[in-house]
This record gives sequence, structure tokens and C-alpha cells, in this order.
Amino acid sequence: MSMSDGRTNDTKRGTERLVVIGGDAAGMSAASQARRLKTPGELEIVAFERGNFTSYSACGIPYWVSGDVPERDRLIARSAEEHRARDIDLRMRTEVTEIDVPGGRVRARDLESGAESWTSYDKLVIATGARPIRPSLPGVDAPGVHGVQTLDDGQALLDTLTTVEGRRAVVVGAGYIGVEMAEALIKRGYEVTVLNRSEEPMSTLDPDMGRLVHDAMEGLGITMVNDAEVTKLLTGDDGRVRAVATQDAEYPADVVVLGIGVRPETTLARAAGLPVGAHGGLLTDLAMRVRGHENIWAGGDCVEVLDLVSGQERHIPLGTHANKHGQVIGANAGGGYATFPGVVGTAVSKVCDLEIARTGLREKDAHQAGFRFTSVTIESTNRAGYYPGAALMTVKMLAEHRTGRLLGVQIVGREGAAKRVDIAAVALTAGMTVEQMTALDLGYAPPFSPVWDPILVAARKASTAVRKSTS
Amino acid sequence: MSMSDGRTNDTKRGTERLVVIGGDAAGMSAASQARRLKTPGELEIVAFERGNFTSYSACGIPYWVSGDVPERDRLIARSAEEHRARDIDLRMRTEVTEIDVPGGRVRARDLESGAESWTSYDKLVIATGARPIRPSLPGVDAPGVHGVQTLDDGQALLDTLTTVEGRRAVVVGAGYIGVEMAEALIKRGYEVTVLNRSEEPMSTLDPDMGRLVHDAMEGLGITMVNDAEVTKLLTGDDGRVRAVATQDAEYPADVVVLGIGVRPETTLARAAGLPVGAHGGLLTDLAMRVRGHENIWAGGDCVEVLDLVSGQERHIPLGTHANKHGQVIGANAGGGYATFPGVVGTAVSKVCDLEIARTGLREKDAHQAGFRFTSVTIESTNRAGYYPGAALMTVKMLAEHRTGRLLGVQIVGREGAAKRVDIAAVALTAGMTVEQMTALDLGYAPPFSPVWDPILVAARKASTAVRKSTS
Repeated sequence: MSMSDGRTNDTKRGTERLVVIGGDAAGMSAASQARRLKTPGELEIVAFERGNFTSYSACGIPYWVSGDVPERDRLIARSAEEHRARDIDLRMRTEVTEIDVPGGRVRARDLESGAESWTSYDKLVIATGARPIRPSLPGVDAPGVHGVQTLDDGQALLDTLTTVEGRRAVVVGAGYIGVEMAEALIKRGYEVTVLNRSEEPMSTLDPDMGRLVHDAMEGLGITMVNDAEVTKLLTGDDGRVRAVATQDAEYPADVVVLGIGVRPETTLARAAGLPVGAHGGLLTDLAMRVRGHENIWAGGDCVEVLDLVSGQERHIPLGTHANKHGQVIGANAGGGYATFPGVVGTAVSKVCDLEIARTGLREKDAHQAGFRFTSVTIESTNRAGYYPGAALMTVKMLAEHRTGRLLGVQIVGREGAAKRVDIAAVALTAGMTVEQMTALDLGYAPPFSPVWDPILVAARKASTAVRKSTS
Repeated sequence: MSMSDGRTNDTKRGTERLVVIGGDAAGMSAASQARRLKTPGELEIVAFERGNFTSYSACGIPYWVSGDVPERDRLIARSAEEHRARDIDLRMRTEVTEIDVPGGRVRARDLESGAESWTSYDKLVIATGARPIRPSLPGVDAPGVHGVQTLDDGQALLDTLTTVEGRRAVVVGAGYIGVEMAEALIKRGYEVTVLNRSEEPMSTLDPDMGRLVHDAMEGLGITMVNDAEVTKLLTGDDGRVRAVATQDAEYPADVVVLGIGVRPETTLARAAGLPVGAHGGLLTDLAMRVRGHENIWAGGDCVEVLDLVSGQERHIPLGTHANKHGQVIGANAGGGYATFPGVVGTAVSKVCDLEIARTGLREKDAHQAGFRFTSVTIESTNRAGYYPGAALMTVKMLAEHRTGRLLGVQIVGREGAAKRVDIAAVALTAGMTVEQMTALDLGYAPPFSPVWDPILVAARKASTAVRKSTS
């Protein structure tokens, strides 16, 4: 292993160097945006990615596994070659192993050769992403047990699915990844069991709304087990996984998918003394600068974001935030100006034709944030009741007592349910009251909505409930 | 003809009487809402409807004609009997012929018997709706020429469609009704020609966006003729319509549908000296009271509404507004409190699988309102590009110079295009800038949106354009 001493690759006179750690959505969006604003003569951009892929859609992996997306490369938004063609010095399979903040440099290891070297920076972007939670259970590393965080993970799972003979799949976790993987495996003809630690699946919803997801997934033939604490994974004589054990039972499995969630990957940043919040993510200011550091930015799954409704930080690993972070970082690092004001917690998903959406606070969150609130639930339809294909939609809405401020919306229904949550997302951002929402001029035509959109029906009920609340 | 002299049906001691003129969405919503708040002992409610039907969805008529909705009665939200069961004295086939404002009474004629009588009111609701524009052209009353404003109109058209032998249909007008009727007739196997006075169809859009509708409709096999001024309708020896003539050509027709639009029906109100605006609609305050009158309300297609973007009144005949007006009127007439703050001009429609949406101001409107603005157009997809069924969506966005305030959005695309306009509708209501919109936390998952929702892509482009604008 060779290692250069001190700064190497010093920048040319008058040329600054931007170093990016992590070649996925946040990092490469930042690099690309900065490149649009500065010529290579003004700003050299070096990006390090330890993996084999860059700028890909991890959110698309379930649809690649299901077969909806026929090939892996469709998930790659921009290849390493395309980035290099835009004058970004992207070094693949190169892992940054240390950030030297006082020295303004990073140490990186070429994972092929093992060679390490230091690279100095004027500006640094940390976009190290998240790592999947992998419980330290017996058998968790057995063949046939798969995560689905990276394209390599997806390929390994697909390899198992095409070689394994049995058709019994167990998904551990019933959040977004869990329910999407359950759909993928159902589509591939597996008998699917979902083991869920929580009271109901989709714990990003309140349990009463999660129950609707539970029932719909059972209706699809998926075995749903709530309150299931996985204790170990059992292996057969061949060493492969053969079952998943919980505190109560054993579930035979030819393949196991872990969809338990992720944590911010901040090992490097913490070692460098950078500030990390209660959820383990880097803390930034509105310009996505790491707090207290003028020339270091961070974005994507490795940071915490401000929840504009509760006023508290949260960790929300979502590609759409990572892309926005990257844009903001790139604008600022490129000499422009942009801010990321925060999130309201919008997320959408689906299991076959069941659509699931949420934004803002759940009841639990609202309590924790100190709100006193009213919660209403309504049923309506996605189209005029008389229009073909009209299907039920359940909307739950939370509003603050006294002010009537909208606090959150959850929706479970068929076609057209998920993206209706955007109405509430904008209303939350604008700080609207549910009374104000009753007058929203939403699109109406029989194929698209009842004459009172379900969001309006919920707002009317919430508004009445707020008036009746005495606290 | 018998006519009582002066007030009849005087209210019981302590009981007020609410009289409603017009038994469709606005009128009956008002009546129903007032009934929820007041007992029959507190408030007598009398409603007059000159037609055969009450509380029906005129917006649904194209889908009944197309066959998507199998029977007429599906379009009736609440029958006369159901209203009466709720203690509303609903008098069908009874036309109000005069409003005596100083006397606090209305004169009504029973259309069966011809009998007229006066009914006094303490509170009056005017919900007389709109009447279709019927050009005074030679041949316009010939058999085979149909409007589609009422259920009776729809039935007459269906009767023609089931008896006429030829399969050539001409639709006059290319607004919402025109394009929806073109779809209905295509679905019924007709050769359809749409004659359109304007530069492009859907003149509620800018012409560049209307062009997309034009091209898509031609792609469906519909013959689209722009700049077509109908001069007369030609009839055959049997007296039936046989062709439509424009300034340039003749279009053979076995059936003709007039979809030219409507005007507020305010004959009674004008005769009574009530205030009418530039578009011929009644003028109200925020509580939907007719301006200058404490105890007279008006709502639905007979009123003008405040456009919150331009600050000017407009006439927008839409069931969703009529229902909201009715709720607000009923709350106020029932002793409660509610307001209708205005509209932003949202409308959605479709032609087969092409979805069309608009909200806020077109370029023409923005000029007329005094705005200086920037306009951008982007193409994106309704889903992640790699997800099956991803289809193009075109989004046009207008933003004010200097402030960057959003002024309007138009969308043409496939599934998921129409209701995306709601995002912009809420942003307009909240007075957001396009820069603020770039940070909106909209729902993202590959089946529902690219990682940058098309609305975000448009907002980014508009935001950049605003920064570059020098005026």
C-alpha cells in the first residue's frame, strides 16, 4: 500500500477543488449542479464512490426484483462515464477512509489495488448515504437471506430467486421496503409471509390506517404477522436459510428478505468530529452546510432534516430529498444560493393496486411534538361514485385544537389515492388550517374525483371537529 | 290561472321561511345544510325547481351518453323524495317567475296546472344556474341538433343516437363539454368532427398547450377543425340536420352536439334589480350574500366568483363550486358562519386517456390582470422513467417577474396528469413563489412519480427564468 504524505494533487493556481464523498443521488446531484455553475478551470470536482454504481434509484429495486423493470441498468440515472464526460473526476471503487477537517483533506483507498492517498479539498460534500439495519441474529448471514439496499443486493436476491427451488418467501419488516418486496415476491409467484414487529404494518401510519394495509395485503394472499419479533434464522444441512423463528413460531422460508430500514452512514463524519443529531444523522443548516463548518456540506440519507410541522429533526432516507439536497449543495458550492427549508414527511407507496400515502404527523408524533389535536377519518371514492372504477379511499386528517392548523394526512385506497397526499403536503408547507382547506379549488371531473374531493370531505369533517373541541 | 294576492303561506309564529330558487347543486346543498342547522319549527324551507330533476351531476352527462354510466338515475345525487324526507318542501316543475325584493316574496308557476301564487320569504337563495349558449343560426332547432346541459337534453341526445342511422357526428365547440362529448361519440362508434372557433381546442389553456390536445384528439381519429365559424346548419328533406356549414366548408352530420358553453341565468335577478357583474353573473360578498342584501344569497352557475390570482370576478360554472356555495349559504342562512373566499380557476378533463388540467392564469389572463411574467414549459413523465407505463406529461408554468409568485399551471398528459394540478392550486391559494415550490415535499415512489415530480421540474425551470428576467 502506498500512501502519499500530506496533501497531494494540489489544485492549480486559482482553481478550487470540490471533493464529494459518495457517488449516489445527493453527491452526484451536488457535483453536477456545481459543474453547471463553474468551469473546470474554476472548480475541479473529485468524487469518490466505494461501490460499483453511481446515481441509481434504490427505490426502484423492488420493481426490478418483481420483473416490472426488466434490467438493472434502467435504474442507473447517470453512469460513471457520463459523469466523467461532464468533467467530474469520479473515482469508482474508491472508499474514503478518513476526513481530516483541520487539514482540509480526505484519505481514500482504491478498493482494487488497496492503495491509499490523501486528496485536499477547498470544499467538501459528505453524501455517504445510509446503511441497512442488519440485526445481529443467528443465521442472518446465511445464504438465502438478502437485503435490498444496493444494486448488488438486488442482483444477489435475483440470483437466489432464479436458482432456489422452493417458493416460500419471508419478508422481515413491513415498512415501505417490506411491503414493496412483498408485492415483488407475490408477482414472482412466491407464497409470501411478512413478519412485522409493530402493531400493524406501515408503522409510518397510525395503526388504524395500517390495519387497512394489513387487510388488503391479506386479501392479496400475503400472510401478515404482526407483533412478530424475529429471534433467529434457521439453516438447513446445506447451510442455507430454511426458516425464520419468532418468539412464537417458525416460518419456513426458501428466501428471506430483510426490509428493516436504514440508519445514517456517518462513521467517517463522526470520526472527524462533525455534529450528529439524535437520529444519528449529520446536522446541517438551511444551505445544507454541516453546522459550524463554512466549507463542508452534507445531504441525502446521511443527514437529518427539519420537520416543518413538529419543528424537530428527523431522519427520512428518500431519494427525492437526496436529489433536492444535492441541488442545493451544488448551487451553494458552485457560488450560487439555494436552501432546503425542510420536509413535511410525505411518503407514498403501493402494494399491487393498494396505494398508501402519508404526510405530516401521525397521532404519536403530534403528541410528542406537544400538539393537542383532533383526528378524523372519512371514506370517499377516487372518482364520482357513478363513474366506472370508482373505488373506496380512506383519508385520516389531524388538525390542531384552537388554531385548526393541519397537522397530518394519511390515505389508503386504490388508484389516485397516493398522490392526493400532495394536496396536504402543500397545505402543510403553507401552514393552512383545515377550515381554509375546505375552500380549496381542487380539480373536479367525474373520472378524477367526486364533486367533493376526499381531501375536502376530510377537511370539512376536521373543521367541524376543531370547532367542537373545547380544549 | 289563479293567483293569490299579496303574501300567502305566511310562516307560523316564530318560524322563519327560507325560499330556494333552483333545485340543483347550489340550491339543494344550501337547503340541506340549513336544514342540518335548524329544525322545521325554526326554519321552514321551500325550494322551487322548474325541471324534472334535482341535485344531479350535469358533469356526468357525457359519461352517460358514452355508455360509461349505464343509466340516468346514477347521476342523481339526491331525489326530490329524499329531499322531502329531510323536511324540505321541494316543489318540482314549479318555476319562479318574479322576485319581489321589497315585498319579500317570490311568484311561482306550477308548470303542470299553470297556477301562480306568491310565497313570502324571510331568507332567499337564488340558485338559478346557467343556460347554454345557443347560437341564433339557421337550422339550430332542427331535429338531430342537441345541447347537453340537462338530463332531459342527455336523454334526447341518447334517443337520437339510438335511432339515427348515420354515424357522422359533429361537435360544435372544443371546450370541456366539446372534448368530453367527442370522447363519448368516439366510444359509441361515431366518426367525429369537432368544429372550434378558437385557434386551438380547450381555449381555457394557452394555444401551445391546446395544440397538444389537438394533436392527441387527431391521434384518436377525431377530425379537429380550428378557426371554424359555424354559419348555419343544413337540413335534409326530412327536416333533420344533415350538415354543419362554416365560413369555409360543409361537414356532413347525422347528429350535432352543441357544446359552446353557458351564461349565468339571471333573468329573474336582474328584473328584481339585483347586482350583476361584467360576465352577467350575480355579485355576492364572501358569505355568498347578494351584495347590498342582508337576507338574499346566491350561488352556483348564476354567480360570478372572485379569482384570487387576478383579483377580478369570473364566471366559472362548475359543480364543485356550486356545492361549496351551497354549503356556505346553508351555513349562513342556518344561523352559522362560513365564507367562500374565491377560486384559483382549477379545472380538469380528459379525452380518452389524455388528461387535461389548468389552474390560475393563462398568458392572456396574466397580461390582462397587469402581471409581467415568465412562462416555462417542461416535459417529464408521470412515473419514474424506468417504471412500466411511464408516459409523457407536459407542464407549463407562469410566474410573476420580481416576486416569482406562481400565476398558473397547465398540464397535458396521460394517467396522473390531471390531478397533479391540485398541487399548483394549493400553492396558488397560499401565494407561493415558484422558488418555494422547488422545495415542496411531494410524494415520490417510482410507480407514482419521477424522483423530481413534474411540478418540481417546472418550478425549478420557472425559478431560474424568474431570476434571469430583468423587468
